Amino acid sequence: MIQRRAIIAVAAMWALALAVPANAGDPCCATGDLGLVVERASGSLVVVDRSEHAAVGRIEGLGDLSHASITYSPDERHAYVFGRDGGLTKVDILTRKIVKRVVQAGNSIGGAISDDGELVAVSNYEPGGVRVFDAETLGIVADIPAGAKTIGLADAPGRRFIWSLWDTGETWIADFSGEKLLLTKLADVGKNPFDAVLTDDGRTYLVGLFGEKGVTAIDLWADEPKPVRFLKDYGKTSDDLPVYKMPHLQGWAFTDGQFVLPAVGAHELLWVDRGTLEPTGRTPVHGQPVFIIAQPASPYVWVNFATPLNDTVQVVDSRTHQVVKSIVPGPAVLHMEFAPRGAEVWISVRDSNKVLIYDTHSFRQIGEIEAQSPSGIFFTARAHRTGL
Amino acid sequence: MIQRRAIIAVAAMWALALAVPANAGDPCCATGDLGLVVERASGSLVVVDRSEHAAVGRIEGLGDLSHASITYSPDERHAYVFGRDGGLTKVDILTRKIVKRVVQAGNSIGGAISDDGELVAVSNYEPGGVRVFDAETLGIVADIPAGAKTIGLADAPGRRFIWSLWDTGETWIADFSGEKLLLTKLADVGKNPFDAVLTDDGRTYLVGLFGEKGVTAIDLWADEPKPVRFLKDYGKTSDDLPVYKMPHLQGWAFTDGQFVLPAVGAHELLWVDRGTLEPTGRTPVHGQPVFIIAQPASPYVWVNFATPLNDTVQVVDSRTHQVVKSIVPGPAVLHMEFAPRGAEVWISVRDSNKVLIYDTHSFRQIGEIEAQSPSGIFFTARAHRTGL
Repeated sequence: MIQRRAIIAVAAMWALALAVPANAGDPCCATGDLGLVVERASGSLVVVDRSEHAAVGRIEGLGDLSHASITYSPDERHAYVFGRDGGLTKVDILTRKIVKRVVQAGNSIGGAISDDGELVAVSNYEPGGVRVFDAETLGIVADIPAGAKTIGLADAPGRRFIWSLWDTGETWIADFSGEKLLLTKLADVGKNPFDAVLTDDGRTYLVGLFGEKGVTAIDLWADEPKPVRFLKDYGKTSDDLPVYKMPHLQGWAFTDGQFVLPAVGAHELLWVDRGTLEPTGRTPVHGQPVFIIAQPASPYVWVNFATPLNDTVQVVDSRTHQVVKSIVPGPAVLHMEFAPRGAEVWISVRDSNKVLIYDTHSFRQIGEIEAQSPSGIFFTARAHRTGL
Repeated sequence: MIQRRAIIAVAAMWALALAVPANAGDPCCATGDLGLVVERASGSLVVVDRSEHAAVGRIEGLGDLSHASITYSPDERHAYVFGRDGGLTKVDILTRKIVKRVVQAGNSIGGAISDDGELVAVSNYEPGGVRVFDAETLGIVADIPAGAKTIGLADAPGRRFIWSLWDTGETWIADFSGEKLLLTKLADVGKNPFDAVLTDDGRTYLVGLFGEKGVTAIDLWADEPKPVRFLKDYGKTSDDLPVYKMPHLQGWAFTDGQFVLPAVGAHELLWVDRGTLEPTGRTPVHGQPVFIIAQPASPYVWVNFATPLNDTVQVVDSRTHQVVKSIVPGPAVLHMEFAPRGAEVWISVRDSNKVLIYDTHSFRQIGEIEAQSPSGIFFTARAHRTGL
């Protein structure tokens, strides 16, 4: 009798397990609308469900995430987390576990995944250079020392990576499409590149310079890419205005045939014609811009600001260069991430321990998520974009 | 004894079920790199895994798919299949089952999903008009009769849909962002619109006309969008060249500051400056273009052709307007779909019963998949794009 009950109980549980097949019923089996929020103080990640406006899990043990970025595998299941401490961590967003973690350098600054999803590259301050890993195993594929700090690492089409060297003012392009690594070095890119970014069409690599005025553009579609200087007045414009935070160039937006750049140390955005590289306007804003991010499928860019004016976000129209909206999410707005078709924006407010969700059309707050000192927000849709 | 064996057997199977938790180990739990291939003759879909270059399942019973299109839910789990017979079918790409199917009209031509993923719209030939459904339940939300065939339906930001009317030469914009549906009707768009498309920035709605020469552009970023005619010589250019197939305007590509359009009835592409709407060049090609699709993060567009020259695909450089490559995948190339970062292209070859996969940089064939009379190929990454 006991045996029979046991059979029934076990069979019932087994039937239950079958009745909920591996892929049905669990709202998190599909990965297209998931994301990760970096909890910078605790070295952890909150797994979020974009459709549900909800936190659905937490992954801990990621090390120093005080300056972290994330890329995704093409299936939007695995995230590669690049930590300040040189840690490269592969996490599974479905099981919410760390799959593998290597501390691959002393101090790293960012990473990228190749367009075929097979290679993950990490740029390092200490000891400098770039290391490339197998995306599946995190086994090392290539070590490309530079004797210099590397910045502005991005994936480029054709199994390539591009980055710049702070100390030597060069840009290097590594091509992994053939049997042997092909390394192209461009000299005279400018003194002390501090960040760089690739436009979303994979064409123009823009390099911000700390050691001299100006910005450098490199056309990667050219047979022989060459650095071209523009905005020769660009840089720190006045000793009166301390630079509270170097702007992220990842935040340069590309909209309506223009680039928009954060003025360094000033309360201003600069607009540049994408074709001619000539300035087309300036926008006075609330503070020193940190991120300028284009709202997808719109003429608008959203801007956040450096401390002490970092409680505010402004929305600027790329056609008129006018601020059209200011909102105050709260103390220490660190990052903004748009739903891929632009319907909503998620904003991390570090000192409120919250991520706020706004409808981009009505500007109404439509949700919020608890997170400990949230900084970067990364939706899985990034898996499908070039140059991140 | 029999009972004990049964317990052990059941317990073992149950343990197995537990040992393979819902979300681990199954390569198809993540949905970012999945897709569907339409099998037009048999009314079925092949589920494909882009990373594995493999077919992983088949879904049957979708009715008449001789002219079908597909959109995806934001989580990239559910596909909405719009069939020629007026069928709207919601399928689950993970369980590979039909979730719900409604035959909502007599003859439908395409559909779209709202930017928040909540509404699915279908445009109909018979009885005409547009019907809008709840994406979750497929319950009807709005019936918008038009007394006319509707074409060129696209999603626009802000919970809007846009479409055009063949019979009356109008474009209608339906705004579902408020309590009540707001319907805007633009007259004098042109005689007999045969297809229309929205640029990926959500700005310009382009309408091809059958009843008169020319193309119409509507700027959706304007406060009061207005139809503007351009390319006033555009249309069927010669009675000597029969039009074997009206080109799909969905295939208009937007690259390097230009639109590229298929010449109607001629063996030519037409290039137009995106800002001025002035022609910038022509490219003689192998046959009558059907789809012209931009390779992501590249200066190239890929073109396929109408019967009887439909065994060939050509690659054209948007900067020089020159054909840079011709390949011959085989008899009846019907569609091409790029990996979202452009590394590979999948090409359906109907009369070979195959989908061929090419590396876009080397042009080498790197995979193939069996399918019965394959036509459209739709990767889940479309979930994240505007205007599809």
